[in-house]
Amino acid sequence: MSIAVSAPGVSPAVGTDQGPRAGAATDVVRMGVVGFGYWGPNIVRNLNALDRCHLMSVCDTNANALKRAQKNYPGLHVTTDVTDVLRAPDIDAVAIVTPVWTHFDLAKAALENGKHVFVEKPFTSNSAQASELIELAARKNLRIMVDHTFLFSGAVRKIKQLVDDGTVGPLYYFDSTRVNLGLFQHDVSVVWDLAPHDLSIMDHIIGQTPEAVVATGGKHLNHLADMAFITVYFPGNVTAHINVNWLSPVKVRTTLIGGRDKMLVWNDLEPDEKVRVYDKGVQITNGQGVYDLLVSYRSGDVWAPKVESTEALSLELGYFVNCVLEGTTPSNDGEAGLRIVRLLESAEQSLNNRGQLVVL
Amino acid sequence: MSIAVSAPGVSPAVGTDQGPRAGAATDVVRMGVVGFGYWGPNIVRNLNALDRCHLMSVCDTNANALKRAQKNYPGLHVTTDVTDVLRAPDIDAVAIVTPVWTHFDLAKAALENGKHVFVEKPFTSNSAQASELIELAARKNLRIMVDHTFLFSGAVRKIKQLVDDGTVGPLYYFDSTRVNLGLFQHDVSVVWDLAPHDLSIMDHIIGQTPEAVVATGGKHLNHLADMAFITVYFPGNVTAHINVNWLSPVKVRTTLIGGRDKMLVWNDLEPDEKVRVYDKGVQITNGQGVYDLLVSYRSGDVWAPKVESTEALSLELGYFVNCVLEGTTPSNDGEAGLRIVRLLESAEQSLNNRGQLVVL
Amino acid sequence: MSIAVSAPGVSPAVGTDQGPRAGAATDVVRMGVVGFGYWGPNIVRNLNALDRCHLMSVCDTNANALKRAQKNYPGLHVTTDVTDVLRAPDIDAVAIVTPVWTHFDLAKAALENGKHVFVEKPFTSNSAQASELIELAARKNLRIMVDHTFLFSGAVRKIKQLVDDGTVGPLYYFDSTRVNLGLFQHDVSVVWDLAPHDLSIMDHIIGQTPEAVVATGGKHLNHLADMAFITVYFPGNVTAHINVNWLSPVKVRTTLIGGRDKMLVWNDLEPDEKVRVYDKGVQITNGQGVYDLLVSYRSGDVWAPKVESTEALSLELGYFVNCVLEGTTPSNDGEAGLRIVRLLESAEQSLNNRGQLVVL
Amino acid sequence: MSIAVSAPGVSPAVGTDQGPRAGAATDVVRMGVVGFGYWGPNIVRNLNALDRCHLMSVCDTNANALKRAQKNYPGLHVTTDVTDVLRAPDIDAVAIVTPVWTHFDLAKAALENGKHVFVEKPFTSNSAQASELIELAARKNLRIMVDHTFLFSGAVRKIKQLVDDGTVGPLYYFDSTRVNLGLFQHDVSVVWDLAPHDLSIMDHIIGQTPEAVVATGGKHLNHLADMAFITVYFPGNVTAHINVNWLSPVKVRTTLIGGRDKMLVWNDLEPDEKVRVYDKGVQITNGQGVYDLLVSYRSGDVWAPKVESTEALSLELGYFVNCVLEGTTPSNDGEAGLRIVRLLESAEQSLNNRGQLVVL
Repeated sequence: MSIAVSAPGVSPAVGTDQGPRAGAATDVVRMGVVGFGYWGPNIVRNLNALDRCHLMSVCDTNANALKRAQKNYPGLHVTTDVTDVLRAPDIDAVAIVTPVWTHFDLAKAALENGKHVFVEKPFTSNSAQASELIELAARKNLRIMVDHTFLFSGAVRKIKQLVDDGTVGPLYYFDSTRVNLGLFQHDVSVVWDLAPHDLSIMDHIIGQTPEAVVATGGKHLNHLADMAFITVYFPGNVTAHINVNWLSPVKVRTTLIGGRDKMLVWNDLEPDEKVRVYDKGVQITNGQGVYDLLVSYRSGDVWAPKVESTEALSLELGYFVNCVLEGTTPSNDGEAGLRIVRLLESAEQSLNNRGQLVVL
Repeated sequence: MSIAVSAPGVSPAVGTDQGPRAGAATDVVRMGVVGFGYWGPNIVRNLNALDRCHLMSVCDTNANALKRAQKNYPGLHVTTDVTDVLRAPDIDAVAIVTPVWTHFDLAKAALENGKHVFVEKPFTSNSAQASELIELAARKNLRIMVDHTFLFSGAVRKIKQLVDDGTVGPLYYFDSTRVNLGLFQHDVSVVWDLAPHDLSIMDHIIGQTPEAVVATGGKHLNHLADMAFITVYFPGNVTAHINVNWLSPVKVRTTLIGGRDKMLVWNDLEPDEKVRVYDKGVQITNGQGVYDLLVSYRSGDVWAPKVESTEALSLELGYFVNCVLEGTTPSNDGEAGLRIVRLLESAEQSLNNRGQLVVL
Repeated sequence: MSIAVSAPGVSPAVGTDQGPRAGAATDVVRMGVVGFGYWGPNIVRNLNALDRCHLMSVCDTNANALKRAQKNYPGLHVTTDVTDVLRAPDIDAVAIVTPVWTHFDLAKAALENGKHVFVEKPFTSNSAQASELIELAARKNLRIMVDHTFLFSGAVRKIKQLVDDGTVGPLYYFDSTRVNLGLFQHDVSVVWDLAPHDLSIMDHIIGQTPEAVVATGGKHLNHLADMAFITVYFPGNVTAHINVNWLSPVKVRTTLIGGRDKMLVWNDLEPDEKVRVYDKGVQITNGQGVYDLLVSYRSGDVWAPKVESTEALSLELGYFVNCVLEGTTPSNDGEAGLRIVRLLESAEQSLNNRGQLVVL
Repeated sequence: MSIAVSAPGVSPAVGTDQGPRAGAATDVVRMGVVGFGYWGPNIVRNLNALDRCHLMSVCDTNANALKRAQKNYPGLHVTTDVTDVLRAPDIDAVAIVTPVWTHFDLAKAALENGKHVFVEKPFTSNSAQASELIELAARKNLRIMVDHTFLFSGAVRKIKQLVDDGTVGPLYYFDSTRVNLGLFQHDVSVVWDLAPHDLSIMDHIIGQTPEAVVATGGKHLNHLADMAFITVYFPGNVTAHINVNWLSPVKVRTTLIGGRDKMLVWNDLEPDEKVRVYDKGVQITNGQGVYDLLVSYRSGDVWAPKVESTEALSLELGYFVNCVLEGTTPSNDGEAGLRIVRLLESAEQSLNNRGQLVVL
């Protein structure tokens, strides 16, 4: 989308509302980054390493953060004024790596200025905002990608493959635990902080439209839930459960996925063998009476397929650049972001009403 | 309660409706066991090893089970007729180790015949039955003990001590996971099969009256839930969560307990170091604005206290014998059994109504 | 070999020096057990459960041990006089489950009285004794089996299969660690106590004649080594290493086996997935100079084959009974026992001389 | 040591053979780095972050390595000519991060040019070289530090403290396992590649002069040992054992340390709880006969002390800078390096002669 030479002030990347054009000039995306706090440096590092991406500017309101950015990337343009990035004529796309309550305004301004948007998860603070951004981007023919990083990890890609190619068989359940001590967020509960990971992975793996959400949990230190247990009902008795907790003394990152033919355990803390495939199962044949049930168990080999170890964020940002250059819609687009925001809203509502069923 | 010599048909253990009497004769409990299936052999083995207990008779409707019993305990009286045990004049107490739907009738008959009762968990199929048995036992001055075995394990006793002596500080949560492949029960869901363990431990550790229950789950193989997620609300934001699952490829027996001052992890599958005490915590000081929250984390040493390894069931049965001989009320009495049955009823009801809040 | 009715004092099992005879009478082995201490009860329990074995008598010099035996096996004949077992006309075979320094005398007497012998590991206190027993048994056409129990475990049988069927490829090494706290033996060092397990497994898996032994170690509490490190050199650079230690705070039972095509890790403390097969390897191609070495690594899937869980000792004793009845030579015969005793002698000699090379 | 302005060719840092001088000028060490391969980037990153260190130049013969260096540290002076670093008048100290066979020549040249030296482990290819460098540095009053990084890790510092303060009691043994797949070195065996870590930690923890070395091992892929088992004998029966292996399918980094009063397990792959302290022990009281031995076991709590997580290399390089500025001798000086080289020479010699005892 970038053009090597362009008349001053008439950057073709701004306001064209067009897809990528043919020609040598469209082979690089010029990116700005807003937010250089906890996650921003990872975005910047990976963008910096991409071939078809030019890192143009980094914005943060914290001067110390910018000092760190410049120490690591001497010569990098930095600014505390976000409009420097959002309106820059030589920037094609903006990565928004800021607290969730700022996503909507920043993304909206970026889209309005003709920038494609890569935005941190969760997409927005509510589903209305998400819908508005989706519509705006569609209108201006711009891409939105929501940073559901885990979808690009070797483990999730392997699991997705094993589910999609029929190895696992029809799905029974998805049960994910993501607990550790902290980090407490100031503005969002543990639901909005940790569950987006699990919900986006669940959404990706199960690939169906959920029916309803029930969430419970607790608030022990302030007014925000610090532990939550979320059940998502899918058609056909497929059940998802997510356990997120900021008050656990140990770190756990384990997902169990049960299918008719295979069962998977994904332990993301394992350095190797993150995904294990168990040739285990149960078959129940109903007889005539309650005691005529015939239950047979299958317990065979266990298999840990080799999982690719390329950094997920690197693949994701490369995919973003590619989608921008090719004009294609990413799978983790605004719609995917909206689906997760809806689930988060529902879970928060349910949790705050002691497990109230929220039908989607 | 046993008397070495007694006129035929006038067993002092039957129909006296009295507590233990003074004198040399009261130093042994003569026990019968009903049920020699999966758990019964453990009951029999431990009763057989107790000093102050005479194992009088074992009953099962399965002739092969009785053959096994006699092979292991030659000379043991066995029978397929339960009335042989329930009405035997020389039997003081009966252990009922049968499917839950039989507990009420068997325990009622035993109590009516003046026998003390040790009954498998869960106590009964519903709370009305439990209440009736409690009343009956009280009327006849007989003991009921419900086999909440885990309460007598070294791990739970250590945890109870750490909570009661103030080491853990005010409790925040109790989060237990008990999953494995099978064994599917014919007549009860995973809630009634596995959750009694966790609920009785929770009841024992937290020691408060719960306010409400929310349960979700799934049914994948027949009409009974094979996975369940139970949240129990306690006063003061103490939150309990229980994850039970018959369809897990791996066995997990892990409980996290969070307190203000310490956090515990109990992994019952560890051969040693079952209980770990983490000197970890979070403190939040509210400032003026949302960003003024001051969060401080504490992360110190980890400590695995030595946990006694005496078999829990042996301690429990010894305690039962002692309660019978001394006429004292066990902590895991009928009331404790009733509390768990109420929670199971509520959880099942909630699960069957997609997380309906059941106020206790 | 057993005959239902036989003239007193003319037991056909004694002094016949013949193999099993045809006819209905040869379908049961009548066994006596000498020693009911730590391991004896396991021998007795498994013998008792075998169809083609009659447990005739148990001998121990400890009266309490015999009391325990009778409590568990009412009606069992017990004795403190070993000649009751060794000379009994109605006993065909004797299991010797006593300290190693008694093996030779007991086994010799048993063989001289025409009994087949099942003897605890290590076979004898030295190789001269082992040779003498082998010769005696051959002369009298009797079987000797040395209790190398682990060879009958599901894990070792699976490993053996993977090595023998070529899956692992040519072997590079066998490295076994067997450490824990105690139990200190009074009469033998950790070499003779723990290493027989590893050496017999090594002997079985590698299946070659070792060339030499080097052992080091330490003595910290008395005059016997409590930790030992044994290297066994095999032809073709196959290297075995064994680490045994009575002074370890943690229990470790791990064996690494490296082959050209696959590498195995056997962790015997894992409840499931005891054996893991790693599709990993290294290939070095020598170039012209030292820096022309081309090293390529292969790192593929990991696989945990289902391992049979039948109790090893049950299989082994069934095999013993079968060998006696069929007159066949067991693989873990006196010769196998002798090979291990030679290795133990060599290791002890080397250890006592600070790693002196002992050529076999 | 650095002087802001100095007459050309008369750098006070070269050839002065003097300790640090008073004055504002001595508050910074100007460093050059030779070698930017596998480990060099870590050295450069940490030097770059040190306050009292100026990173002056990085040398490597590989142009791509230098390109990477400049990408990460724009403005950094790089060179392919090592004399640019070794003779630079404005460089006070040189870090030598190259293959071991180059250490001697590079370090010698650096010392001759008046530079302090920080050199990768192992110090040199043989002990004669090490002695010559030590003498040269002493003559020129320059510091040598050998990069035994692990000594600065939180785990080793905690273990050292527990040994030195008497918690562990008199030492019995040190048993370290360091195995993984690769990385094969072209010029040195696994002994010289991996064992320097364990030997330097052993040297540091035990703090005694070893008496003798026995090593065994195997060569499976080329002429260099790829697995080695090293026993080091210390006075008073303190026994050290080191297991290093390039052909293991799994990565293990575990050290057991046994003392009379406590036993430690250090698992460096644990993200937390790297060091565990076991209150376990054995006491043997000799009675009159062999069976009068009284063995008592102690098995109490387990404790995982909080271990500092500061990067070891950062602490070590800060310590180097401090030693240079203060003119003090580091604990991991040339003498420490020489001790390890002597052990490596002895181990290699022993291994190549099948466990020959090498008296030190």
